[in-house]
Amino acid sequence: MFPVILKIPQQRPTTILFDQVDGVVDLRKLSLPQLPQLAYELRLALLYSVGRTGGHLGAGLGVIELTIALHYLLDTPNDRLIWDVGHQAYPHKMLTGRKQDMLSMRQIGGLAPFPKRDESLFDTFGVGHASTSISALLGMVLASKNPLACHVAVIGDGALTGGMAFEALNHMAHCQANALIIVNDNDMAIDENLGGLATFLDDHYGHGGPSQWFTALGFTYRGPVDGHDLPQLMAAISGLLSLSGPKLLHIHTLKGKGYGPAELDPVGYHALAKIDPIAKVITRKWLTYAQVFGAWVCDQARIDDRLMAITPAMAGGSGLEPFAKEFAARLFDVAIAEQHAITLAAGMACEGAKPVVAIYSTFLQRGYDQLIHDIALQNLDILLAIDRAGVVGEDGATHTGAYDLAFLRCLPNLLIMVPSSASETRAMLSFGYAYQGPAAVRYPRGEAYEGADKGVTYGAALLAPVELGRGLVLRTVDKPNAIAILNFGALLDRAVNVAEALNTTLIDMRFVKPLDENLLQQLLGCHSGFVTIEDHSCIGGAGSAVSEWLVQQKNPVMLLCLGHEDIALPHGSREQVLHHTGLSETTMTAKIEAWHVQLLAE
Amino acid sequence: MFPVILKIPQQRPTTILFDQVDGVVDLRKLSLPQLPQLAYELRLALLYSVGRTGGHLGAGLGVIELTIALHYLLDTPNDRLIWDVGHQAYPHKMLTGRKQDMLSMRQIGGLAPFPKRDESLFDTFGVGHASTSISALLGMVLASKNPLACHVAVIGDGALTGGMAFEALNHMAHCQANALIIVNDNDMAIDENLGGLATFLDDHYGHGGPSQWFTALGFTYRGPVDGHDLPQLMAAISGLLSLSGPKLLHIHTLKGKGYGPAELDPVGYHALAKIDPIAKVITRKWLTYAQVFGAWVCDQARIDDRLMAITPAMAGGSGLEPFAKEFAARLFDVAIAEQHAITLAAGMACEGAKPVVAIYSTFLQRGYDQLIHDIALQNLDILLAIDRAGVVGEDGATHTGAYDLAFLRCLPNLLIMVPSSASETRAMLSFGYAYQGPAAVRYPRGEAYEGADKGVTYGAALLAPVELGRGLVLRTVDKPNAIAILNFGALLDRAVNVAEALNTTLIDMRFVKPLDENLLQQLLGCHSGFVTIEDHSCIGGAGSAVSEWLVQQKNPVMLLCLGHEDIALPHGSREQVLHHTGLSETTMTAKIEAWHVQLLAE
Repeated sequence: MFPVILKIPQQRPTTILFDQVDGVVDLRKLSLPQLPQLAYELRLALLYSVGRTGGHLGAGLGVIELTIALHYLLDTPNDRLIWDVGHQAYPHKMLTGRKQDMLSMRQIGGLAPFPKRDESLFDTFGVGHASTSISALLGMVLASKNPLACHVAVIGDGALTGGMAFEALNHMAHCQANALIIVNDNDMAIDENLGGLATFLDDHYGHGGPSQWFTALGFTYRGPVDGHDLPQLMAAISGLLSLSGPKLLHIHTLKGKGYGPAELDPVGYHALAKIDPIAKVITRKWLTYAQVFGAWVCDQARIDDRLMAITPAMAGGSGLEPFAKEFAARLFDVAIAEQHAITLAAGMACEGAKPVVAIYSTFLQRGYDQLIHDIALQNLDILLAIDRAGVVGEDGATHTGAYDLAFLRCLPNLLIMVPSSASETRAMLSFGYAYQGPAAVRYPRGEAYEGADKGVTYGAALLAPVELGRGLVLRTVDKPNAIAILNFGALLDRAVNVAEALNTTLIDMRFVKPLDENLLQQLLGCHSGFVTIEDHSCIGGAGSAVSEWLVQQKNPVMLLCLGHEDIALPHGSREQVLHHTGLSETTMTAKIEAWHVQLLAE
Repeated sequence: MFPVILKIPQQRPTTILFDQVDGVVDLRKLSLPQLPQLAYELRLALLYSVGRTGGHLGAGLGVIELTIALHYLLDTPNDRLIWDVGHQAYPHKMLTGRKQDMLSMRQIGGLAPFPKRDESLFDTFGVGHASTSISALLGMVLASKNPLACHVAVIGDGALTGGMAFEALNHMAHCQANALIIVNDNDMAIDENLGGLATFLDDHYGHGGPSQWFTALGFTYRGPVDGHDLPQLMAAISGLLSLSGPKLLHIHTLKGKGYGPAELDPVGYHALAKIDPIAKVITRKWLTYAQVFGAWVCDQARIDDRLMAITPAMAGGSGLEPFAKEFAARLFDVAIAEQHAITLAAGMACEGAKPVVAIYSTFLQRGYDQLIHDIALQNLDILLAIDRAGVVGEDGATHTGAYDLAFLRCLPNLLIMVPSSASETRAMLSFGYAYQGPAAVRYPRGEAYEGADKGVTYGAALLAPVELGRGLVLRTVDKPNAIAILNFGALLDRAVNVAEALNTTLIDMRFVKPLDENLLQQLLGCHSGFVTIEDHSCIGGAGSAVSEWLVQQKNPVMLLCLGHEDIALPHGSREQVLHHTGLSETTMTAKIEAWHVQLLAE
């Protein structure tokens, strides 16, 4: 037995056996008795690298043995291996030729935090959002040119609550496809896993529930087995791989396994922020947008007992922890189930409650039909608090909230607000909450500066009350060929500096829908060009809304839309990615200047 | 016992008992032995009215007894009753004060084909898309001010395959909510129901599967019972309603029950087209877009064995019936499971297959995250054949494909084409299929005129080969202050007449993404205004794309966007709804004329 590791190594640990394993070929040369030693060393190496780079820790530690077993037994990459949600794929990357690159993890140009098809043949499918693996696996099996291959998906019990996983199980049983699903049951999503499924998998009723159910569905079921017991695990996998048809192995693992602090606090050690070898305290000047929301929702709940908060397994990330403590009975964590989250809110609104759905922009994509069909078309009274809207940084394109303005703007009855400070966030949440009908407030990952702070340029102006469809004039210039910068949302900090540097008019638009058309009309009369700034794709977003309005006017002016390029954005720090897509202060200034020259040219 | 009805009554049938029942108060005055008579008469009345108006038939016939039992036993509308997918709600409407209005069903200004909150207090939730009822029910229960109320959702086994139903079951079990779910198991979606779930509900394995599973999940389970045996059904419902916590009743019914032809062919009698009392043969001049797709996909499959077709339970509606006959092994009907359908295609594409996903625009909304995360960001090679894009007519706002251009346009790597004739549809499907990467072809419900037909204006021009991002000039005018009409898609038939009447330039744009910017540039030089025409919301669609381009040009011209208003569209015939939203030939002509006057005014 190898000891539990108590500290994250600050120096590269000694890993004699792991040093010999550069890829799966080396791995398969090891003898069975060597594998536990490899597991121990892989844990050490993972802890060291995640300690340096930050990133997902607990999930990887929990699947060390499983990763070794699968790459040892399967003929990867010819046998396709799909990891549901890439959080758990760091050990997979380390065993498939990328251990030297681990210190570049999540940095721009470095390893992606999730499996990525461009990165390695072993990354058979890009997996950022949960619950996709069984569908992808089944597609691969049905299209495979190699019917004898052993294709495998690993899915957590948390991801299994997502409806599409169930859809795929249902279809896979129908097809009687020849593949193996491993349910990695650690009783956790990012937060603790919830719901009837967890109970069912735990089989508290002693009915042999999972066995009977998966069997009745048409699967060959084995388990549960201890996912950290390599001999038992390998025997179970080998046994199932020798059978044909759809197979399901149910294993129990411990998130954070082998690292003492993470075993005790799996939620806290789901991921690490980047830590310098000589630990620095991270200081923040301002609260994050999530924290601002978290405080607002508590304040509002204290004065209105109709308020109910809903989260699809993101209570912590969304800032709902204080609410969870104070208003446990009014918090509905529905597990990874975004579709259900939205329609649940619709049902609540029908009964006169005031549901507040806290959801990341990228996950709202999964509740889109429900938002249209159940909320917008029925004009129901709910508030969407859309977090992580715009560039998220290290998690990359799969988690970027790049499309919400485009997919929301076309829906009837929906109000869309974009705060650019903490004070506006609070005011807009209150406004949207009081509004009779669906309203959305979208804000990014990271800090929100405090409009009331003396150091904030135009801070006092930002405190102006929110009025329906009204923007705020922050700065005006009266000169020939003036430009008006229309800022939509949280890039205002840099928009302010750009406007000062270039001496332009600056508007804090506040609303994407409805647009402040009166204000735009006034600006049109005395400006020769508009610039829109948004942390969103240039296609279909706020700049697009202004374009639609402009071309309805007599003598429309030109518009420069500053937003994301029409590509899958890279991963990196939020600031690096913003710079990459042209939204840093320097690139915005340069772009506007060049455009202005062109505008004025003959 | 009452006889099976063999013919749809052509005259209002004699229904002595039903005539006394104007609403639930009257119903509850009846004695138990009178109820089978009421059921028989309700069937007759339903057959008569659907025979006159067209609409959904089989589902309603299957729940006659259930509808009577629920309204008899529950205190509706104080007890909330939610019907999953409104197809089955015609008897519900007839028993809740709307029997006099049944002959207005699906007509503009008349009864909606689905429960609609605006229409009746008894319609507690708008249900058009499947699988939403349990989420809505749970929301109502959790927000209810009346904890003793008996809230009930009725969901078919077909709708139960949709992932969000599973998400809701999982959460409901966790909450131990006090409500009843009735699983109406008729082995059918619109087509025959498929998958492991159907097998599981059938309990072919004799393990008592459904009982054990729902019990293990935390539900009190009863069933299966015969859903046409009123005493047995009412006893089961009453018994469960007396218990607290989450309860599930599993009933078996026959779709089309009581009407001989529908019992024998439940798929064929899912819905009736409007039938005149003196039966007329419906004559079509041209094929529908769905039929054009159906023929194309067979042609393509014959020459390329990599082609695999995927449908989420819409093989018939999507035109895939010939394909199903000729290429059964290459058709993947995944049941009502849109999320899975998209990611399944992604998995297939990873293995070098060429998946073609046939999906309605309104249901693609449910696979949106999968389209972003699994297809677009990974730039996988699939073809989306998006049917029912634009106004659908009688099914109303819930089924309108009003948003696809807005939510697709912002996605990287995706090609978007909009055919305006049968010949273009074929050519674009071929082009998108050959294109390396994701491509979408969107077309509406209804007939596609044949570009090769001699009677079609510009028909020969429409046969020009499809080139990437290139539009077709159909008509040019050379006069001062000329207008260019940019047509995007299947409203070309009327756009042609408008262009002739007003003597404008007319372009068949063909691509929404990429736009033909070279052509637009040429047009900009010699036109004083652009008009865009599309069967889509004016917000974020093709007109929006042209706006975004226009405001990047020096001296942009004004643009008039003709598309849907920003409202939930009413139901009615497709032509009526198009007229309502300003897209009939006459309204378009008038709008353009008025706008042109304004454009030319000082």
